[in-house]
Amino acid sequence: MRMSDIIQKKRDGLPLSDREIKFFIDGYTSGEIPDYQASALCMAIYFRGMSDAETVTLTKCMANSGDTLDLSRFGDLTSDKHSTGGVGDKTTLVVAPIVASLGGYVTKMSGRGLGHTGGTADKLESIPGYRLSLSEDEFIKTAEKTGIAVISQTGNLTPADKKLYALRDVTATIESIPLLTSSIMSKKLAAGAKNIVLDVKYGSGAFMKTAEDAGILAETMVKIGKSCGRNVTAVLTNMDIPLGSNIGNALEVKEAVRVIQGKQNDELSEVCFTLAAEMVSQVRKIPSEEARTLVTDSVSNGSAFEKMKEWIAAQGGDANCLSNTDLLPSAPLKHPVISDKTNYITGTDAQLIGHAAMILGAGRASKEDVIDPSAGIVMNKKPGDFVKEGDIICTLHTSSPENIPAAEAEIRKAVIFGDKPPEPRPLIYKIIK
Amino acid sequence: MRMSDIIQKKRDGLPLSDREIKFFIDGYTSGEIPDYQASALCMAIYFRGMSDAETVTLTKCMANSGDTLDLSRFGDLTSDKHSTGGVGDKTTLVVAPIVASLGGYVTKMSGRGLGHTGGTADKLESIPGYRLSLSEDEFIKTAEKTGIAVISQTGNLTPADKKLYALRDVTATIESIPLLTSSIMSKKLAAGAKNIVLDVKYGSGAFMKTAEDAGILAETMVKIGKSCGRNVTAVLTNMDIPLGSNIGNALEVKEAVRVIQGKQNDELSEVCFTLAAEMVSQVRKIPSEEARTLVTDSVSNGSAFEKMKEWIAAQGGDANCLSNTDLLPSAPLKHPVISDKTNYITGTDAQLIGHAAMILGAGRASKEDVIDPSAGIVMNKKPGDFVKEGDIICTLHTSSPENIPAAEAEIRKAVIFGDKPPEPRPLIYKIIK
Repeated sequence: MRMSDIIQKKRDGLPLSDREIKFFIDGYTSGEIPDYQASALCMAIYFRGMSDAETVTLTKCMANSGDTLDLSRFGDLTSDKHSTGGVGDKTTLVVAPIVASLGGYVTKMSGRGLGHTGGTADKLESIPGYRLSLSEDEFIKTAEKTGIAVISQTGNLTPADKKLYALRDVTATIESIPLLTSSIMSKKLAAGAKNIVLDVKYGSGAFMKTAEDAGILAETMVKIGKSCGRNVTAVLTNMDIPLGSNIGNALEVKEAVRVIQGKQNDELSEVCFTLAAEMVSQVRKIPSEEARTLVTDSVSNGSAFEKMKEWIAAQGGDANCLSNTDLLPSAPLKHPVISDKTNYITGTDAQLIGHAAMILGAGRASKEDVIDPSAGIVMNKKPGDFVKEGDIICTLHTSSPENIPAAEAEIRKAVIFGDKPPEPRPLIYKIIK
Repeated sequence: MRMSDIIQKKRDGLPLSDREIKFFIDGYTSGEIPDYQASALCMAIYFRGMSDAETVTLTKCMANSGDTLDLSRFGDLTSDKHSTGGVGDKTTLVVAPIVASLGGYVTKMSGRGLGHTGGTADKLESIPGYRLSLSEDEFIKTAEKTGIAVISQTGNLTPADKKLYALRDVTATIESIPLLTSSIMSKKLAAGAKNIVLDVKYGSGAFMKTAEDAGILAETMVKIGKSCGRNVTAVLTNMDIPLGSNIGNALEVKEAVRVIQGKQNDELSEVCFTLAAEMVSQVRKIPSEEARTLVTDSVSNGSAFEKMKEWIAAQGGDANCLSNTDLLPSAPLKHPVISDKTNYITGTDAQLIGHAAMILGAGRASKEDVIDPSAGIVMNKKPGDFVKEGDIICTLHTSSPENIPAAEAEIRKAVIFGDKPPEPRPLIYKIIK
């Protein structure tokens, strides 16, 4: 079997056999197949697509390219979620304790962020003492004890995906449904949970710009996940504007605490409770509506917040920082961005705001960059608000005063004004099971 | 400027600017742009194509990626030819002396062959003493003195093409009109000749399987070459069956001598005289018909053969081997392939026969293989011939008896029998100026 023949077959629109896909993934993981052949194949897949059967095989081969977690001791009660990524997305911090408080075992490997803002791992790391690296044994014991364990991705889980994703990132081959599906679902398969809820974002701040494209990706992921023996639900959520008010790692922990305490009712809480309800629905095998009631009860009676503190403490974090979020890292500089207009805000471009947060120190431009856990942005106004000249639109948090002008310029580009409030847009577009 | 943005632009069907194309070729040649980005771009070009303006820029950038030959001292009289490659193609050996005998300066860099049979360089090297490597000074002096100089490709001519072609070869991105065009035409531009005749082969033994595909490639090359200030003519010739009777390096020199002496009238001589006439037409600015008469005169009055001997001697070769071709390297083993059928030969698959010749030692399977100059095949029968059981179909020449069975098996697959002689097919499909 020759890799160049496999590339040519896909280039010519022919389906690849299971053997050919396995040959590619095994050879690429081991280094026998070079990057330049893998990138050519990815571009051919971009143009020609893959059948469901091919995508299932690709996903399974990638899942089996490294270690896999055995969570069978938890039976059918394991629950995982994945977000396709967006600005201000702190839902995992809220959702995991809720689901654990209702009997699920939430075991997650979370990524660090590259691009605008930190990933869930970076957010958790802003809590003093929180240990992102646990041995497999510690990971299982923590989950058994508290119902939750969230660590950063370990060394040898889906090495094929690590290598391939990094390659696709620099060869313009990210936006391919079968490649996106296999990348996400292979990690979920390897991480072992029986139940999986996918938060598929669409909109200007998301990877998928339209609900239609996001829907195709979501449907493919649900179908492929089921073919691989997992329960999968996808929730399509809007990401035209940042999710919630706070962007930046410690700032997002702070906001997550408000939501889990039932003190914030907005789009963020709605997305969190919807995701949590779908996860509880899977774990307890009950309808979503029934699960939603359990979720809101768990928040209002305080058991979700108790579970959050228990979890953070079990992984070495200082739970006092949750009871009193003023103890979280706080930036020395807080710079208000003042409106020079009097009008409605009609939009806040999530991508630009994410970029501003990165400039302030909340994200990484390259792998080597160090994140400032206290850096970020608090949005004081949101789309639909009527703003007067002199009002504070948002507050920039940073340790680097020299970066404030560039961040402020991004914010001014991001915030759009108009004479009328914007049309309301659906926050939850669709739930696919 | 980022390479990943350039890949994405082409992936999305947008034209690349001159700056972007130059950025790619310069960066790839210098090694700053890695193979894996170049292969992804090539695959995107495979699917999206390139406009004529993009192809002209790509061709010029590749031509200027290394040294270029200055042939201005020869005025408008320089003439180059290029064949897209086929089995048994020894036309350069015939054509160059004819054109030089009629006032052209034929300066050529010829490739060594990879795949079935040797390239022109390998064929010339089968003549004892012939020097393929000349300094630029020797090259020019030889051309001035004899009107011909044919050497192997020198180190730093179109390094961009060398690197890119090797990459495309293993990433299924060869068959792209703009990439093929820029590869061929950049070498022709760098080699400096004002007049260029392209022998574009089509058929089962050629790169382009249909006359239509070959026509598109030929038209593009002519257009791009003219846009770069050269006179370009393309001749579309058939390559369903090997060209002529002899395949293998010294065997092909032998056959070329017969043609240039006017002793062989067949498809090979017709292709040679047509190509020579087009070259003479360009150099002397006369109609093709008039040039054709000069060509046949040069052959019949012996001046073409005299020029051939003069050229070979000027480059160190033993011209006695041309006057008496029995002095050329000769294989110790000559194995006849005997027909086991009585019927018409309706076809001889050029690719399989080329492969058989390679097995016998006439070509290289990999760059490191050493060619046996005496190895090859002499076809005793050709399509249209009626063959009886026991007749010799062809004769295998080799120094390696152990390879005869495999080569014979290829020949038996290659030769097709039928109850009727085959329909005549056009040898010269089209001439594009």
